Amino acid sequence: MVNHFRGIKALTFDVFGTVVDWRGSIIAECKSWEKTRLLDVNWEKFADEWRSEYGPSMNLVRNGEIPWTKLDDLHMSSLIKLLKRHKITNLSNAEIEYLNKIWHRLNPWPDTLIGLSKLKTKFTIATLSNGNISLLTNMAKWGNLPWDCILSAELSGHYKKDPEAYLKAAELLSLERHEIMMVAAHKDDLSAANHLGMKTCFVPRPLEHGSNKKIDSSPENWIDICASDFIDLASQLGCH
Amino acid sequence: MVNHFRGIKALTFDVFGTVVDWRGSIIAECKSWEKTRLLDVNWEKFADEWRSEYGPSMNLVRNGEIPWTKLDDLHMSSLIKLLKRHKITNLSNAEIEYLNKIWHRLNPWPDTLIGLSKLKTKFTIATLSNGNISLLTNMAKWGNLPWDCILSAELSGHYKKDPEAYLKAAELLSLERHEIMMVAAHKDDLSAANHLGMKTCFVPRPLEHGSNKKIDSSPENWIDICASDFIDLASQLGCH
Repeated sequence: MVNHFRGIKALTFDVFGTVVDWRGSIIAECKSWEKTRLLDVNWEKFADEWRSEYGPSMNLVRNGEIPWTKLDDLHMSSLIKLLKRHKITNLSNAEIEYLNKIWHRLNPWPDTLIGLSKLKTKFTIATLSNGNISLLTNMAKWGNLPWDCILSAELSGHYKKDPEAYLKAAELLSLERHEIMMVAAHKDDLSAANHLGMKTCFVPRPLEHGSNKKIDSSPENWIDICASDFIDLASQLGCH
Repeated sequence: MVNHFRGIKALTFDVFGTVVDWRGSIIAECKSWEKTRLLDVNWEKFADEWRSEYGPSMNLVRNGEIPWTKLDDLHMSSLIKLLKRHKITNLSNAEIEYLNKIWHRLNPWPDTLIGLSKLKTKFTIATLSNGNISLLTNMAKWGNLPWDCILSAELSGHYKKDPEAYLKAAELLSLERHEIMMVAAHKDDLSAANHLGMKTCFVPRPLEHGSNKKIDSSPENWIDICASDFIDLASQLGCH
């Protein structure tokens, strides 16, 4: 198993859902925060609706309808809509700004830190996320994520799964595409990387959308590694 | 002292000379390596000559004479010249490539790690170097440098002291320029940052060019902080 992957020098990670539990983190923080604000909101629904704006908001950039816009700003546009929809009207601008930055304060999955620390001994480990550089940097400080390097779609001005996002990462790492393995909980991300000649690792995260929603965790013959979590991935890649 | 700098959120660091001892590292590694190669080279002179090609090689990019070129590739062009000049003719391409990457294996100054670790508790700490992203990433792994984020002139396609290099860093950190302090052992780097409205910290490194060469370590009234090393800087900024 290890020999097959000897040529891999860097692992690039999708972040939202793959490295951190965005849904659980948002719900937990909002629930603790509403106690002091006398708000009565279905935060599970709120988190899901916020995330459901994610793809469409990036499509505006992908399709050229708006110029490059950081994910922080796309999140803010979605949040403004959501606050209206949920009739949350008593927040100051500073509080709205703080709430928007909840995406900087997402908590890692239980295996994330130990898995990344093991993988870091043998490989360069980098983010390759649609989150902007400052979001990912703040999140790494928040969760003690031991990245060697923070890479982002922001550096190419193209959101994944546009090829430019992956190609810019390879260029900045000064590596050939086959020397990089994309790690993600989402097959469309891996498929885009695979089409460009990168290696791929699928780490399904069954709880990403909550315990009631089934996710697709089946392997595919074009995926190089399927791992149950980052510790399993480290083990499969010979990092002990 | 601390109050005066309350608005600072990130520190960006020059790297060659400021964070790492490029000259001492190159000389030490080359000397240990020549023993096995029966080479008779003045490595002090070799290191100084290699570094003296640094500015002129970046000027070719700054002046538009050649398109954007990674520092690794500029280093390689200089190295090819130097090998000829020093009559070193018995290296394979792989050995030349390895020698060129000596800039990825530079050792930190004695205060660097403890200083950065203290500063990291309170600020975002990032590189802002003319070294390319992969060089800086490999150097961080080599020296265990605890960067929150690797930023580089490469991300703007402009070498310092072109303003674009600093402005791109501020944009990616999502910070105002006055919220960022540039830390460097070189006044021209600080002057460029100062002109753009960034805060500045001067950390002279008396041994950067060897113990025989005097460097300018005098304070200037436009510099915000002068520190004797990174531990002193951490102390001045209230990081304990």
